[in-house]
Amino acid sequence: MKEKGLLIVLSGPSGVGKGTVRKEIFSHEDTQFEYSISMTTRSPRIGEVDGVDYFFKSREEFEDLISKGKLLEYAEYVGNYYGTPVDYVRQTLEDGKDVFLEIEVQGAKQVREKFPDGLFIFLAPPSLSELQTRIATRGTETDELILNRMTEARREIELMELYDYVVENDKVEKACEKIKAIVQAEHCRRERVEPKYKQMLEVEK
Amino acid sequence: MKEKGLLIVLSGPSGVGKGTVRKEIFSHEDTQFEYSISMTTRSPRIGEVDGVDYFFKSREEFEDLISKGKLLEYAEYVGNYYGTPVDYVRQTLEDGKDVFLEIEVQGAKQVREKFPDGLFIFLAPPSLSELQTRIATRGTETDELILNRMTEARREIELMELYDYVVENDKVEKACEKIKAIVQAEHCRRERVEPKYKQMLEVEK
Repeated sequence: MKEKGLLIVLSGPSGVGKGTVRKEIFSHEDTQFEYSISMTTRSPRIGEVDGVDYFFKSREEFEDLISKGKLLEYAEYVGNYYGTPVDYVRQTLEDGKDVFLEIEVQGAKQVREKFPDGLFIFLAPPSLSELQTRIATRGTETDELILNRMTEARREIELMELYDYVVENDKVEKACEKIKAIVQAEHCRRERVEPKYKQMLEVEK
Repeated sequence: MKEKGLLIVLSGPSGVGKGTVRKEIFSHEDTQFEYSISMTTRSPRIGEVDGVDYFFKSREEFEDLISKGKLLEYAEYVGNYYGTPVDYVRQTLEDGKDVFLEIEVQGAKQVREKFPDGLFIFLAPPSLSELQTRIATRGTETDELILNRMTEARREIELMELYDYVVENDKVEKACEKIKAIVQAEHCRRERVEPKYKQMLEVEK
């Protein structure tokens, strides 16, 4: 019996360093996740390769895929569409491989609705812990500055709600290590392992 | 705000290699768990040190501790008591350190009742996956042999119910790595991390 792969979703506030962490993870030779390449209507930049960096599509093609339900999630930024083709994700999971998505928070919300069992990891800015230190050592910052930072922090913390795990991006290497530990742990969850054994016995009854 | 430590419980069928895995974990320099030393009424063997290998107690002392509720779990084997002193566990968790117990399955059941939030890891014998291979390659084993192994496997799988994670002890090093990944992942769970941030903001309201 083949075990289905895990859908791993890495997201977090913009500017937190999702892309850097993702690139680092895929630079490790022992990483066994499949990276889901995004689709976009923006033009390729110099050096970008279709099917490697993105799948480049026309606006018409993209909207056609939307209407056919072929996108797991999508969003429009500054006039261009970005999205995740759903067929690749489903097929790769069926093949028993883990799929890794690195997407914006709005996209993650859409994915949660379709894959409630996915592994949702929130990459948190180290500024949150820094804020804690600042509050504790009051006097080095103006009250107004702290207040602004707290409003921002409140917004960031609210975004966490949807996620299963929170990884602070203080050091890229450390964040990658934690993400890989989370995936490894998830594969050992009793709810995942037990049915495999049970089915093995059922077959023989 | 100090985060409470995790209670990590490693258990599994007898003979699965719990002690070997535990020793290997504590031989790693980067392991940051505190090992909870068991208490026993059996006599020290040559080379065993009180307070290092076990806390050695008389039968009267042990029964006195039982009646005072000072044992997190205990059991009697071949005429001797074995148990886990509860004060050390509680205090160490309060200090924010992770406590590691390596105990028998009956003990793990008792601990689950008192610490439902503990991290319960079941060390599974590799014979379970071996069984799967045997079934698949039928013909190399007699039916009776497979049937016996299946009855045993069924009993082992039933024991898993109580646990959060299942780690197969095929290679000691690999099992240790998985256990450490599980603990690292648990520290990143949103339910653990989020309240810390929220409280930080509450303080300032």
